[in-house]
Amino acid sequence: MYTYTYLYHFTNNIFLKIGCSAKDAETATKALLSADLRGVDSHGIARLVGYVRLWEAGRINPKPNINIVHETPSTAVVNGDAGLGLVVAPAAMQIAIEKAKNVGTGWVSVKNSNHFGIAGYHAMMALDSDMIGIAMTNASPLVAPTFSIERMLGTNPIAVAIPAGTQPPFVADMATTTAANGKLEILQRKKQQAPDGWIQDNNGKGSTNPDELKNGGALLPLGGDKDGGSHKGYCLGAIVDIFSAIFSGANYGPWVPPFVSFLPMPENPVGEGIGHFFGAMRIDAFRPKEEFKTNMDIWIDRFRNAKPVEGEPSVLIPGDPERICEAHRMTNGIELLPPVIDDLKKLAERFELAF
Amino acid sequence: MYTYTYLYHFTNNIFLKIGCSAKDAETATKALLSADLRGVDSHGIARLVGYVRLWEAGRINPKPNINIVHETPSTAVVNGDAGLGLVVAPAAMQIAIEKAKNVGTGWVSVKNSNHFGIAGYHAMMALDSDMIGIAMTNASPLVAPTFSIERMLGTNPIAVAIPAGTQPPFVADMATTTAANGKLEILQRKKQQAPDGWIQDNNGKGSTNPDELKNGGALLPLGGDKDGGSHKGYCLGAIVDIFSAIFSGANYGPWVPPFVSFLPMPENPVGEGIGHFFGAMRIDAFRPKEEFKTNMDIWIDRFRNAKPVEGEPSVLIPGDPERICEAHRMTNGIELLPPVIDDLKKLAERFELAF
Repeated sequence: MYTYTYLYHFTNNIFLKIGCSAKDAETATKALLSADLRGVDSHGIARLVGYVRLWEAGRINPKPNINIVHETPSTAVVNGDAGLGLVVAPAAMQIAIEKAKNVGTGWVSVKNSNHFGIAGYHAMMALDSDMIGIAMTNASPLVAPTFSIERMLGTNPIAVAIPAGTQPPFVADMATTTAANGKLEILQRKKQQAPDGWIQDNNGKGSTNPDELKNGGALLPLGGDKDGGSHKGYCLGAIVDIFSAIFSGANYGPWVPPFVSFLPMPENPVGEGIGHFFGAMRIDAFRPKEEFKTNMDIWIDRFRNAKPVEGEPSVLIPGDPERICEAHRMTNGIELLPPVIDDLKKLAERFELAF
Repeated sequence: MYTYTYLYHFTNNIFLKIGCSAKDAETATKALLSADLRGVDSHGIARLVGYVRLWEAGRINPKPNINIVHETPSTAVVNGDAGLGLVVAPAAMQIAIEKAKNVGTGWVSVKNSNHFGIAGYHAMMALDSDMIGIAMTNASPLVAPTFSIERMLGTNPIAVAIPAGTQPPFVADMATTTAANGKLEILQRKKQQAPDGWIQDNNGKGSTNPDELKNGGALLPLGGDKDGGSHKGYCLGAIVDIFSAIFSGANYGPWVPPFVSFLPMPENPVGEGIGHFFGAMRIDAFRPKEEFKTNMDIWIDRFRNAKPVEGEPSVLIPGDPERICEAHRMTNGIELLPPVIDDLKKLAERFELAF
């Protein structure tokens, strides 16, 4: 068990060692570890070594000049200058928030970035300003559109954070696939089968083997198959891809670069790096703040008290499980799996740090 | 088989008879019949008698004073004044488009409206201005959130229309449930079972009986059950509800008024009428128009040519089937089911029109 503070200092030091400024290292550390706090273990410190390898491969610029390529009062396109997505995304979200302060909403599409951690963290940045925050990103292709055997889309998550009054905020953060890749990794480690509708084999036939992706299989869009509405999951993933990359000039679809440094970069790229999309909407650009928040409280309270199925837990409000996990782990510490600890020990050795 | 022109004149006359202005009747007719053209038969002229009954019940104001309640450069809240959603929605979408012309994007939340037909029609209004259009609406509660047996959300659709260059536009228009209610109605008429993941019975157990809603059952969010990711469909439906109603002051969740006039209005309403949400994003607020369109063409072409599963059709681009249907029906006419024809004959009789 590791305390948040211990992991914070270690991670911060690693980002400093690869050449980040003090400010950027802090930003990246907070974004990365928010995943560990919120229970999205696949996207947190377990990926630190992956980011370092991307830096070694020359794919991450530790001192990026993050700049606005084009803007209007409510929009901007940002060039991440190959920086850590963990640094580029908060900068872009901040631009969206500033624009929302001025004209009600702000919308920022980003090119030339890298993996940004969990989408929910960036969306939640808007909450303190009494805004709704939206964050999405494209990602390396693992998902086959309905009727296809080809991996064309990433798990392309969408996060939406909505402030409430006395209730905690509503925070949705979801891959547009039936299940995120991280859930598959858990099944692989436990040697358990996947439920129907998560994956298909290399012929496009549904499979429950969590290792199917290693054999040329693919993740399935939310819905699983045509009868289950997988064309809708495919639509959602496609929209995330287009907003993140075609608005900005990043790579899209099968051209999105892989997160892992050992896979080759796609040939004939159609853009720069990976793409993100952020939105901020000031709630009082629509309705007096207190009215909005009071009604959000009523909404949340009513849904939390919706009649449950006998024997099932009561209805959850998006963000409930992650918030409870965060409170718990901040107090009780964060458990890491042995292979993650091994990776971190090797990183420590390499950079002459303690772990 | 009826020609579009024949149905157009009849529908237009009905809207004139209930007191709409010539301009509003034309707007409503185009919006309503776009569903019949695009193959969404449940949302087209089959609902005309439903709109008339709402007018008879005093729930539709044929001469609404559609007005802006509050605005910023990129946002507005519109009061639909209990008008036909078919008239209120295009007016609100036009406001979003005008705002996008000025500051890059426009976002409009609407209260005190009624059913607006198909979401895709309103989203597509933005295409002619080289903008991405977004339309969503809440609707009467038929959907149980994950772990609940209570109907808390409507089928709450999301539509996104994206312009391309030489390719036709990308037009996604999807209920946030596994299957829209219209698809269930088709199964009811054909006396066929529904696939797994569409509906649950009044105890929250999955069912394949398409009549289950009459026995207190519910539609299921996209994903079907927890393993299938239904919490994500619930999130999406919730976001549509909040953007449509809590931004604007419309009713939300279980308080959304029913479309059918014979059901009682919910007690202790939390807002006015039903709510919609519209967005318009100028593509050149992000990137030069031609660059965007060229890349959309590459995207569409690449996805259309993704390797298909053997024996399955090739990958569809959202909007393909509806566009093909529209071209076909505009030329060959629109077939109506006998009960729909009966309804229209009765309407004709009542308003002294021919059908």
